[in-house]
This record gives sequence, C-alpha cells and structure tokens, in this order.
Amino acid sequence: MTTAHDYAQAHARQFEQALFELLAIPSISTLSEHANDVERAAQWLIAHMNRIGLHPEIHRRAGSQPLIYAEWLGAGDTAPTILLYCHYDVQPATLEDGWDTPPFTPTVRDGKVYARGAVDSKSHVVAHLSAIEAMLATGQCPVNIKLLFEGEEETDSSHIFEFVRQNPQKLRADVCILSDGSMPDQHQPTLVYGLRGIITMDFVITSPQRDLHSGHYGGTVHNPIQAMTEILAQLHTPDGRVTIPHFYDAVRPITPEERTLWSPVADWIEREWRAVANAPMPWGEPDFALHERIGARPTLEINGIAGGFWGEGFKTVLPHKAWAKISCRLVPDQDPIAIGQAVKAHLLSLVPPTVRGEVRFLESGAPGVVIDPTTPPIQALIRAYEKGWGVKPLLNRDGGSIPVIAAFQQHLDAPIILMPFGYKGCGAHSTNEYMVLDMFHKGIATAIHFHQLFSMMK
Amino acid sequence: MTTAHDYAQAHARQFEQALFELLAIPSISTLSEHANDVERAAQWLIAHMNRIGLHPEIHRRAGSQPLIYAEWLGAGDTAPTILLYCHYDVQPATLEDGWDTPPFTPTVRDGKVYARGAVDSKSHVVAHLSAIEAMLATGQCPVNIKLLFEGEEETDSSHIFEFVRQNPQKLRADVCILSDGSMPDQHQPTLVYGLRGIITMDFVITSPQRDLHSGHYGGTVHNPIQAMTEILAQLHTPDGRVTIPHFYDAVRPITPEERTLWSPVADWIEREWRAVANAPMPWGEPDFALHERIGARPTLEINGIAGGFWGEGFKTVLPHKAWAKISCRLVPDQDPIAIGQAVKAHLLSLVPPTVRGEVRFLESGAPGVVIDPTTPPIQALIRAYEKGWGVKPLLNRDGGSIPVIAAFQQHLDAPIILMPFGYKGCGAHSTNEYMVLDMFHKGIATAIHFHQLFSMMK
Repeated sequence: MTTAHDYAQAHARQFEQALFELLAIPSISTLSEHANDVERAAQWLIAHMNRIGLHPEIHRRAGSQPLIYAEWLGAGDTAPTILLYCHYDVQPATLEDGWDTPPFTPTVRDGKVYARGAVDSKSHVVAHLSAIEAMLATGQCPVNIKLLFEGEEETDSSHIFEFVRQNPQKLRADVCILSDGSMPDQHQPTLVYGLRGIITMDFVITSPQRDLHSGHYGGTVHNPIQAMTEILAQLHTPDGRVTIPHFYDAVRPITPEERTLWSPVADWIEREWRAVANAPMPWGEPDFALHERIGARPTLEINGIAGGFWGEGFKTVLPHKAWAKISCRLVPDQDPIAIGQAVKAHLLSLVPPTVRGEVRFLESGAPGVVIDPTTPPIQALIRAYEKGWGVKPLLNRDGGSIPVIAAFQQHLDAPIILMPFGYKGCGAHSTNEYMVLDMFHKGIATAIHFHQLFSMMK
Repeated sequence: MTTAHDYAQAHARQFEQALFELLAIPSISTLSEHANDVERAAQWLIAHMNRIGLHPEIHRRAGSQPLIYAEWLGAGDTAPTILLYCHYDVQPATLEDGWDTPPFTPTVRDGKVYARGAVDSKSHVVAHLSAIEAMLATGQCPVNIKLLFEGEEETDSSHIFEFVRQNPQKLRADVCILSDGSMPDQHQPTLVYGLRGIITMDFVITSPQRDLHSGHYGGTVHNPIQAMTEILAQLHTPDGRVTIPHFYDAVRPITPEERTLWSPVADWIEREWRAVANAPMPWGEPDFALHERIGARPTLEINGIAGGFWGEGFKTVLPHKAWAKISCRLVPDQDPIAIGQAVKAHLLSLVPPTVRGEVRFLESGAPGVVIDPTTPPIQALIRAYEKGWGVKPLLNRDGGSIPVIAAFQQHLDAPIILMPFGYKGCGAHSTNEYMVLDMFHKGIATAIHFHQLFSMMK
C-alpha cells in the first residue's frame, strides 16, 4: 500500500513546483496596486485546492482581500476535526531593496528557494495543501479538515476577526492549528506553547501653548520633554521591575514543573540573544532567566518617543509637546484592559501641575496565552515534529503576540497550537527571504504525522 | 538752521519709500534659488548708500552672501566712532504660508507695513541709513561711522565671524551697536543690557545592535529610550536646579543694586509669559523672579528627543538608539567649554553598563554677556530712547543669545549695545510680519539722539 508519506516523497518535485508558482505571484496586501495580484493568488489557490479534492469558498467583504475557506469532512463523525489557519499575502519587496535575485522570481540556490513570502508564509500554505493532497490521494486522511487562508495578515486582519466571530459553528474543530512563524534553528524544532498578549497606548505631555524660543523662556517653563523623561524614568526599578501598582498581581507564576520542562531551551535563547540583540549586557528581572523574562514575564516598553527638534543640526526650541508610545506585553492571567487602566492611572498620577498629560489607548489589546503542554494536541505535535525532524523538539513560550489567536480563543472552544516550518535565519520581512527546501519537506511530513497521531489520541 | 531731526521729519515719506523698496526684494538667504535676490538687495543698498554720501565696499567669499562695509570718518579724530551692525537678509515666506497679502509686496494697513523682513530686520537697516542721511545732509554728524551689513544672518554667519577676526583695526570703534530685535511693548522701550550664552550638544544612547521586535526581546534589553529618560530625569532637582557638578560655580550673582535697577521690568515679563508661554504654571528656581530666571540664571534644556517609532499608529519596536538635543544657556562668568565638558562628563557618568552613551558638541558655544548699565554708551542709549519714545526705557537682561556678539567681544575692544526698534508682536519669522511705521520713525529719531548724546559723553 502506498502511504501518504510515500506519496509525499514521490511528489516532492511537484510540491516544490506548486510552491514556486504561488511564490511568483506578488500578493502584496499592503500596496493597493497589488490588489489584483492578491486576487490572482487566491484564484491560484482555489484551482489548486479543487484539483486535490477540496472545494473552497471565497468570502469577500468590501475593501478586504479574499478569505478562503474549505472543508473536507470525509473522515466521518467519529474522527477528530482540525481547523488550519495560514496566510497567503506577503510583505512588499523590490529588487532595489537589495535582493540578489528578483523577489517574485523564485530562485533555488544551495537547497533554498529565495522569494518574498518563501518563509512568511507561502511554504506553510503549500506544505499543508501538499500533506492534505498526499492523505486524500492515498485514501489515508484520518481527520476532518477545515482550512482558513487569509489574504491580509500583513495589513489588517479585521475581516478574519469578523468571520471567526460570525461563524463559530462552521469553524468548530477539536484543535486550531496556526501554521506560520519560525523556530530558532533549522535542525532543532522548537514548539511554542505560550505567547504574550499586548496593550498599547500613546502618552502625551504638553506645557506651553506653542513652541517657544528656549532663550526667551528657558528656566521658566517645565519643558515637556524633561517632564516626560521625569515621568517615564519612574516606571521601572533599577533591576527592571515595572513600578505600576498591581501590575504583577494577576501574573501566573512559573511552576517548578514548567521551569524544568522549559529549561532545555535556555541555551538556544541565550545564543540567539547574543547573535541578534547583542546589547552590552542583558537587562531585566534578575530572578528570571532570559527565556523566562521573554516568555513568562510582562513588560512595559517605550516603543517610541519624540519632541522638539531631532534632525541634523540644532534648533533652540522649547517645545509645546512631547509624546511617547508605550506598550505592555502581558502574560496569563493579566487582563489587558485592567493593566491598561492601571498604567494610565499611574502615568497620570505622575504628571506634575506644571504640565498637562494625556493617555490614549490604541487598540483593545490581547491577553497572553499558554497551552498546557501535557494535553493531547501538544503531545501529538511533539511526536510529529520528532518524527518529521528526527530530533525531539524543545518547548518554548514566545514573547510576541499573534492577534488572530485572540479571535480563536474568544469564539472557538478548541485548543490552539502553533506549527512553524521555517527558521529565524530565513529573513521574514527582510531582503533575500528564503525557505530551506528540506524544511518545507519536513513540514509536509510533520503535518501528515500530526494528523495521524492526533486522530489516534482523540 | 535745519536740524537732523527736522530733516528726518521732512523726509519721513521718502524714508518709508526706501524701506518699501528694500522690502520688495525677497532677499531670502536660506534658499539658494533666492541668491540673486540677496545680491539685488545688496546692490540696492550700495546705490542707496552712495546716494546719501557713504561709499560702501562689498566683501565676498565663495559660497557666502555679500557683506557690506562702509565708513564715514568726517567727524574727525577727536570725535567718537561708532560701529553699527544690521542684517538685510530675511526668512523664507510665501503667500501660501497664510499671509493676508503677498509677503514681498509691502502693504500698509493701520499704520503698519506688512512684509517679510519688516521688523527682522530691514526697518533697522533703513532707519539707521535714514538717521545717517539726516545727519550728513544737515552737516550735523557728530560721530565717525562704520557700518557692517550682513546678508546671511538667517543662515550661517561664518563669513562675518571671519571678517571681524581678520579686521579688528578697520572695525575699531568706541562702541559697537547691534540693531535688531524687539522690545516687549511698542510704547514702552526696553533696553537689553545682557544676553545669555549657549553651548549645544547631541546625546546618543545605543543598546541592541539593531532595532528589535519588542515581543521577542522585551524584558531582556535595556531599551535605549528608557535608559535615556532615566539619565535625563536626573539632570534637574524638583525645584528646577541643574544637578551637573560645578554648573553654578562661576555664575555671577545678581547684586542688590542690579536687582533694584532691573525689577521694573518684572511685570512686563510676567505679562508676556502669560500671553505667550501660558503653561499651566511657571516652573524654575523658586528664589528667582521670572525675569531673573530668564536673564541671569543658566539652564539645561532638552531641545529635542527621538527614538523608535513616533508616527501615527503603533510599531512594537525595541529600538537600537535614542537621541536627545541638549543646550545650556549660560550667564557671566560661565565658560562655555568648561560647562560643556562638565555636562558631558556628568551625562557619561550616568550611562549604565547595559547601554552605550555618546556626547557630541555641535558648535564652539558662546559666553553670556552683561554690559554695565552705568557706563556712557548705555547711559546715552537710555536717554536717546527716552527722547525718541517719550518714555523712560526699562532695562532688561534677555535670555537669548546673539552669536555675532561673541565675535565682537573677542576681537573688538569696545562696549556692545543693542538697539531694537521693533516689538515682539510684529511677528519676526512668522506670517504677516509687520513693522509699526511710528516705531520706524521713533527709531530714526532715537538713532540721531544716540549719536548726539554719545558724542557729548566721550
């Protein structure tokens, strides 16, 4: 009997060919002149999905890129159902940005395919469609499948948020798989079982009614830049703790068991920190290792600041205004709204009577999420990666935030797992983005293994 | 006998006409496409000066606008010599900026002439040439005259700095008059007998080697914006004193006599502060009145700050770098270089080992200056304004800096006085700049009075 894995091996070149075809379409969702290309990519996917036995629907909304939904329920009522999310749109790219080859002419060198979207995230789309093709063609698909392919992940995901909110029954599944992202090393798979949430805000200080000449008024007006620094400097202790009252009240502690489970990733994270961040020395809460500070500890970050004249040369302005962009990364069980209000109240309490202060929230925020790594979907995922990569994967909690997760968490009653096939060196959002073709094929094998293992666990 | 004052009254319309002619030439020194217009303004001045009996020279340097020098030494060796400095270049202006009438079509409304350069500073140029014309035409010029008219005050005064340095003999005089600037009220002349100096610098903090994703690294890197605020927040005490060691060591105290002499200006300055600055409340050293904080106390000001993302929306960047523009306004007898070094040393001492810090000086700086208000030139100036305006002038120390003063102080052994004819409401550098024609004529009378009074004092 031909297995799904045999089929995948036999069709490796065809799968790559499909990937290259999709990579050749510049489906840049952030540039309106490429709207037709995003549509072309959607039509390519529809045709490809029909060919392998899926029958997708396109969901459209005014001003939005096509959202593709497909389901195959041939495994029957007793089999588990998976919901898979990927995105097929890409970041902008032009040869002039510094690419060695045209970004929409997929080019293979040293076992890597160079093209915009190679790792973020068309390899994930095509790897999953290839795995499904292999399972369906060989009559060995042990799970029911629901697919959701987004065409505006790089711009504004509001369409998919609405779709998820309005279709919880249609999307009902036993597990939600988000397949995107990168592991720190191409030979050592690392699975993310937690992500931080986020809340963002603008903080504005104004003082004089207009920009002043610093000679004519300096010494009599509380300079808003100075007042801003005096306020912001009070938000951390010298050892990096956030000073906002009640900031840490709800933070879920790291249990000794989790600390043990998680610790194998420490050296990888520290190595990556040296390679990428490479600050003079690490900073932060001394009681926590680097990977714990990133994955399990909340932060308050000043993402931007501006005021007065900051260009070449000098202007002796005593400015009207200074402003800062502040975000908090959140962990379970911090409530984004409560933390936002606590930060706002504390900021305003620090504003002296010599200036005016204002806090504005920018988005509703998203909570942090941790998936219990002992539950069946994660256990199936660990074993699938071990089979696919030939190495036992490490477990990690990542410090970033994936907004669409919040929609899945809120409206779908199913565990969520992340299934990345790329690695960080592939340069998502950067020039000369690539995908390692070996990782693409390991991804296909891992996806097939996951479906087989998960179906047996249910 | 026709006096110089009679002549000036009889020729009031001609003097205005000359002013309007000069105002019609857009001598914008900051825009290279107006280089020919600056040249045209210089040629207009040459012709006008020749007509009234002065015989100017043009001094040129590659890349510089014409510097006009003229002398009339007909008062003889026993008479005093005055050196007068004005500038004839102007700031940019277009109707689209929000002018009610074209900025280079001088328009009279309600006794004011509206045009770019009206108060800053062509009225000063033409008022002085008119006073000299009146004195020469009536044979009543009691002083020898040296004129220096600059065409690049609004851009880069390096040419005049070099000229002063190279020609101390040629420019030798008993008093240097800088005629520019504004008094706080058009009916109450206020004479500036002191100015603050300045030293400027860039302060840069870097931490990670490149911009990072605040999710992936937040909590492990000392954010350079945060480090910057933590350093800058330490530079002032809560009551507004600068914390730099030795910052105040050389500051010349205000004597009780000076405090009395100076105090009549207090109400004017406070009124102006309320009208223009209008911060929620004044700030600064509590032991000093507002006018003293501005005129006699040094400051450390953050003129600009930037780092990360500060535009509309939000980017979760943990930036590579933050930078600030810092200036100190200086008073006698602070040395700009010593203060600059003290600030630099203190800033660098506050940089923690988690980030890197760098201080770069932008210019060589200028010292503060105070002219003893009991000396003959100031006494002549006080009486000249009293005659010209019909009101006893107030005395004030201004908080700004006039760079060319440093060159005069360093290379010319003569007292320096400031002779403004405009007032702050005239809107120098702003839209709908104007000069009150009554102030223009009072300026002509005041200049004639000054020369007469000064010649009698010598």
